[in-house]
Order: sequence, then structure tokens, then C-alpha cells
Amino acid sequence: MARPFTDLDAGRANLLELVEHLIRKRGAASVTLSELAAEAGMSPSNIYRFFESKEALFEAVAERWFAPKVAIMEEAVASDLAIADKLTAFFGRRFVMMRDDYLAEPELFKSYLELGDDHQETVRGYIDLGDHFLAMIVAQAMEKGHFPGLTIDRTVSLINLMMVPFINPEMMIELMHSVNEEKLAQAVNTILCGLRASSEEGSESITPDVRPALRAV
Amino acid sequence: MARPFTDLDAGRANLLELVEHLIRKRGAASVTLSELAAEAGMSPSNIYRFFESKEALFEAVAERWFAPKVAIMEEAVASDLAIADKLTAFFGRRFVMMRDDYLAEPELFKSYLELGDDHQETVRGYIDLGDHFLAMIVAQAMEKGHFPGLTIDRTVSLINLMMVPFINPEMMIELMHSVNEEKLAQAVNTILCGLRASSEEGSESITPDVRPALRAV
Repeated sequence: MARPFTDLDAGRANLLELVEHLIRKRGAASVTLSELAAEAGMSPSNIYRFFESKEALFEAVAERWFAPKVAIMEEAVASDLAIADKLTAFFGRRFVMMRDDYLAEPELFKSYLELGDDHQETVRGYIDLGDHFLAMIVAQAMEKGHFPGLTIDRTVSLINLMMVPFINPEMMIELMHSVNEEKLAQAVNTILCGLRASSEEGSESITPDVRPALRAV
Repeated sequence: MARPFTDLDAGRANLLELVEHLIRKRGAASVTLSELAAEAGMSPSNIYRFFESKEALFEAVAERWFAPKVAIMEEAVASDLAIADKLTAFFGRRFVMMRDDYLAEPELFKSYLELGDDHQETVRGYIDLGDHFLAMIVAQAMEKGHFPGLTIDRTVSLINLMMVPFINPEMMIELMHSVNEEKLAQAVNTILCGLRASSEEGSESITPDVRPALRAV
């Protein structure tokens, strides 16, 4: 994500600091080019030198918010940790970062989530990037015999579903009384030990066909 | 949940049908005694014969909404299904019911969720009841050697966390593109095969101490 450091980049970085200050003071709705120009004491035409549209401004805000999370994922994928540690680092370090950010400034954190809700396509790009990194770890785990009988995509989808309270910030907030690092590590362990195809040939699953269990008992 | 069937009960049941009709027409905010009296063509004093307060009305609405889910849980607990089928029935039949209700009338379903948000203490009672039933299944599973090294409470908490997209209706709606019965059964299978204590004596866990993995790698 690093770009060559120019005066323009330095100006953008300063303005993004100012955006956070604005959000803290006046909430997510304050993220507009005119509010930012006013706060920076710039003319509207001057602000366009840094961000050519409201959407470009939001994309920069999102990049700033996601950058440390992306770095955590990149580092986890590239690390030579054992698979269980790698997955725990991948999910756990992001979880700890989000939780601590939330606890330090709950209103600011919620304002960022609100901004994300209003720009779902940009956020979707980062979610897809996360899935891409997770797929790389899943492929490494499969080489060691984990997730027998499952495809990479299916495994990524099931892991994402089972880790929702540690990944999804809204859910993390709602379940704040229950989620912690130790439970996260136990969930990762559960997935690594237990996730496999249900009825593929050669699997040793104990789960029978799902249909009888879903009929009235 | 069944009560002796009296004229008063019959009157209440009819009025609760009318409440659903009101919600369908005018949303969750329409659930008040005066709106209901108007819709039923009753005097306000007459409606108090059936529901003595707005809160009593909401509790009856909640009981009507939760009754079939409670029945599913009771039936699953009492069944002589194998543990994997029992857990799949416990979560899966509720999931299918909620999903189908949502898909049939999304706005009505969301209005019920809104009502629940406004009466969290009543809803909490049903969540605790669900935990109570789940604890009974977990105890049965432990007798068969599942979840080694874990307490019942810890196991219930971890299962609830890992099943969030299939239990929590808001999350189910958000992840509607991804959740289905087959993934639910695979998640149950994963939990049953993989959930165990991390570092208790005698466990064969592959998860190491969580701390190193959470440090910068």
C-alpha cells in the first residue's frame, strides 16, 4: 500500500488526520470535501488537488483504516509460524487491534463502521483481499493434511462463518462481553482439528446426511 | 408453554394474530395497546382485560414468536438422535424456520427483530433458555467423550460464538448469500470433532499458547 512519499502524499496524510479529528468531533456525516476544506482552512478548489471527489476521499479514509489490518494479514501469511499459530495471528492480531480501538474510542470506531456501511463496495474490496490471504493460509494447511475433502473456497467460507464474532466489527461489539483472545485461539484450534468434508469419499466424518436431522424429530 | 384454553386465552390468541396483521401493515411501532384496541374495535378498558400493560402485550408477542423455536429445542433435547444429528436438529431446524420466515416476509421479520431490540430483557430470557437446552446436549455429548477438558459453560459459549451466523437473525440476514443447511451441518461436525481444551493436562491439542501468535510476527 506504500506509495512514493511526495508533498502531495504528505498533504493527503495530514488531511486524513484532520478527517479523523472531524469524525471524532462531528461524526461520520462530517466526511465531505467542503467540511474538510473548512476545517483545513483551504479553498474548495485547493482541496481538489488532494482528493478529486468525495468518493476518492472516502477511499483514502478506508485505505488508512484498513492498512494496519492488511499488514497483519500479509505478515501472518509470509511468516514461518506453524499453521495453528499462523491462523491465530491472522485473526487474533486483527481482533485485538479492533477491540482495543473500539474500547479506546467507541464512538469514533462506530463512526468508521457507519462510513463503511455507506460505502460497501470499497469495503467489499478489503473483505475480498482478506479472503485472498486466508485462501493462501488454507492452501498451506491443506498441504499438511488439514481440511480433507474440502475445496479452498469452501474452507474459506466455512472458516469465515465460524469466526464471525472475531472478524465482523458490529458482531464483535455486540458480543464484547464474551469474545477474547483465548476463545479465538480455541475456535481456530477447533476449525483446524475438526473441519473436513461431511460425506466425501475417504473422509472419516461422523456427521451423517443433514436431511433426517432437519425433519421434525 | 401451553396454558389451559379459556375464553381469555382464545381472546388473547386472536388479538396476537391481529398484532401480526398490524405489524405487517404499519411496522413494529404500531404494537401499542391503543393501536390494538382500535384495530380490534375494542374500548381501551376492554383491551386491558387481555393485556394489562404494553409490556405484557410485548411479552405475549415474544412468546408467540419464540414458541415454535422453543418447541424445536425441546424436541431436539428429548430426541434419541445421535449427538451430531441432535445438534444439527437443534440449530438447523431453527435456522431453516427463521430463514424461511424471513424470505417469505422480510419486512415483517425485520419488524419483529426491531421489537426485540426494544425489549432486550424479554429476549434475553429466551436466549438463556436456549443456552440451558444447549447445555443439556453438551452434557450428553461429554458423556460420549466430546469436548475433552472443557466445562459445560465454556463449551456452550464457544459453540454459540462459532454458530453465530446460524443463530443470530441479523447476522443470518447479512450473510444470507452464504449460509445454508449444509454449511450448518459442517460447522456442527467441525465443533463436535474439533472442540477441546487448548492446553489442559491430558488434552491432545495442537494449539500452542496463544500469546506468541498474537505478538507481531
